[in-house]
Amino acid sequence: MSETQERVVVTEVGMRDGLQSIARTMPTAFKRRWIDAAYAAGVRHMEVASFVPAKLLPQMADADEVIAHALTYDDLIVTALAPNLKGAQRALHTGVHRIVAPISVSAAHSLANVRKTPADMIDAFAAMREAIDAASTGGTRRVELIAGLSTVFGCTLQGAVPYADIASIARAALQAGADVIALGDTTGEATPRQVGEIIELVRDVAGERLRSLHFHDTRGLGLANTLVALKHGIREFDASLAGLGGCPHAPGATGNVNTEDLVFMLDSMGYDTGIDLTRLLASRAVLADALPGEPLYGYLARAGLPKQFAAGRQAFESFQPATEPQVLQ
Amino acid sequence: MSETQERVVVTEVGMRDGLQSIARTMPTAFKRRWIDAAYAAGVRHMEVASFVPAKLLPQMADADEVIAHALTYDDLIVTALAPNLKGAQRALHTGVHRIVAPISVSAAHSLANVRKTPADMIDAFAAMREAIDAASTGGTRRVELIAGLSTVFGCTLQGAVPYADIASIARAALQAGADVIALGDTTGEATPRQVGEIIELVRDVAGERLRSLHFHDTRGLGLANTLVALKHGIREFDASLAGLGGCPHAPGATGNVNTEDLVFMLDSMGYDTGIDLTRLLASRAVLADALPGEPLYGYLARAGLPKQFAAGRQAFESFQPATEPQVLQ
Repeated sequence: MSETQERVVVTEVGMRDGLQSIARTMPTAFKRRWIDAAYAAGVRHMEVASFVPAKLLPQMADADEVIAHALTYDDLIVTALAPNLKGAQRALHTGVHRIVAPISVSAAHSLANVRKTPADMIDAFAAMREAIDAASTGGTRRVELIAGLSTVFGCTLQGAVPYADIASIARAALQAGADVIALGDTTGEATPRQVGEIIELVRDVAGERLRSLHFHDTRGLGLANTLVALKHGIREFDASLAGLGGCPHAPGATGNVNTEDLVFMLDSMGYDTGIDLTRLLASRAVLADALPGEPLYGYLARAGLPKQFAAGRQAFESFQPATEPQVLQ
Repeated sequence: MSETQERVVVTEVGMRDGLQSIARTMPTAFKRRWIDAAYAAGVRHMEVASFVPAKLLPQMADADEVIAHALTYDDLIVTALAPNLKGAQRALHTGVHRIVAPISVSAAHSLANVRKTPADMIDAFAAMREAIDAASTGGTRRVELIAGLSTVFGCTLQGAVPYADIASIARAALQAGADVIALGDTTGEATPRQVGEIIELVRDVAGERLRSLHFHDTRGLGLANTLVALKHGIREFDASLAGLGGCPHAPGATGNVNTEDLVFMLDSMGYDTGIDLTRLLASRAVLADALPGEPLYGYLARAGLPKQFAAGRQAFESFQPATEPQVLQ
């Protein structure tokens, strides 16, 4: 990789967002294998579990074990999702590096998803912040708290989400102690112009604390939206291997942006993701083994890498030198 | 539609590129129905047939009849593909408005597809130009001749296609009398940075004669690439209803960009396509009736229009006024 390549962080969220949205529970041993395979492919950011009651999401009941395994890799940044103070306390106990708390901008979605209004969720978020700060005294590493704004680009229940509400929630989350603002297209409604507008809107409020985007590919615009976000300075994206994912309270929503297809696009544009595409594609075998019959998505997995794309390194050089034409001689 | 909306032309090419790549032949009556349904949805540019020997492509044997039907609509711009002089003469005879001649930049693809080298194809193109000019004397409407540069973004046979070759073929096509240069991602290998670079490269050669882009969605980048092309000033795109399409000599290539998903993206960005999405989605019924069992693709067809997207008109207003927030009160 050349030194001039700009880094883009791809966070694998399939172990959390993907697995929580399918009916079956992936056995812990397969989750370990998935983490191993993703790590071997170069993935260094993973959201591996959520701390919600096992009654509600049995798929995540082994969160402690899964996180413990992920933390055996020294240079892997491990994130867990926690929707409330209790979840955050459990997450803190495991030693994760990042905790993401979902805050729906759509009140209707917030009530359906966490049975709280957005304002109540901000209060819960502030309590999580306090718990993290209390746990970080005495020189221990400070856990990063991410406000995962969801239904930012529209809501299947509410419809349009006013821009003023997005700015308001972002501001409130920052006041409540968010280290980072992440924007989630929970219901797969984001469109390119809107993505650019909302990034600028939230950046006005959050500055550099606006860091990552979480797209679903419900209407085929996941990569186009990513392109707009890149243009607007975003360098961190969530994605799911094989496009696993969805949201139980967002009818019609489909999986996250496909990790392999995202990495292919980023590679082709000269960004450095640190991820080896061939190994990443091979890691889909874990899902096929663990979840036989589960639909696995992905363009690249079906079509393969183009002949001109040399596996493992950049193939598309910026503006090839204008040598003599070969074809008309 | 507001007067400030910029027009983007979407050319439905499914009747040609889509139908020629599936094994079955769509009966002429269904092709008529498809044209009627597309017209009713607001589509005003269609590539409806190609003039190739019926032995090679029986799917296109009814080209004359199909074009005659399309020409019953006064304000429909009708295009036919012709790979050689004989095809162009047959196309001219029907009264089409535009003839597109494919010229592969990849020599390997050119030989496989039309059994000519690119240089021989340029000679054939010049002969087509002469035939068109000869037919246009005496004040009749001049048929537009489009050089459809194919395998511009890569080739399954050759691999990378040198930029110098693209510029060279574009220059030769213009010298041979091309009214328009169109760029085709025949094998579905185009990537965003490359699209921007190649558009600028060809614009340096062709100026305003570079007009349209033809993407396939083989690796999921069709809409992302379209976004880049829009940014670089392109306002004309080919697409296929339900993503029908492909190329028999480009293994692994899949259908064109899906018309419905493309129109949705353009609508959401405030472009005026003149196409009614609800009617366009409904027109898929013609394909389902005519080609039972044939896979039909499309994100929007599966997920539906978002609640916030009012059918038939723009839903996403540019930067909503910053009214008082609703959710935190």
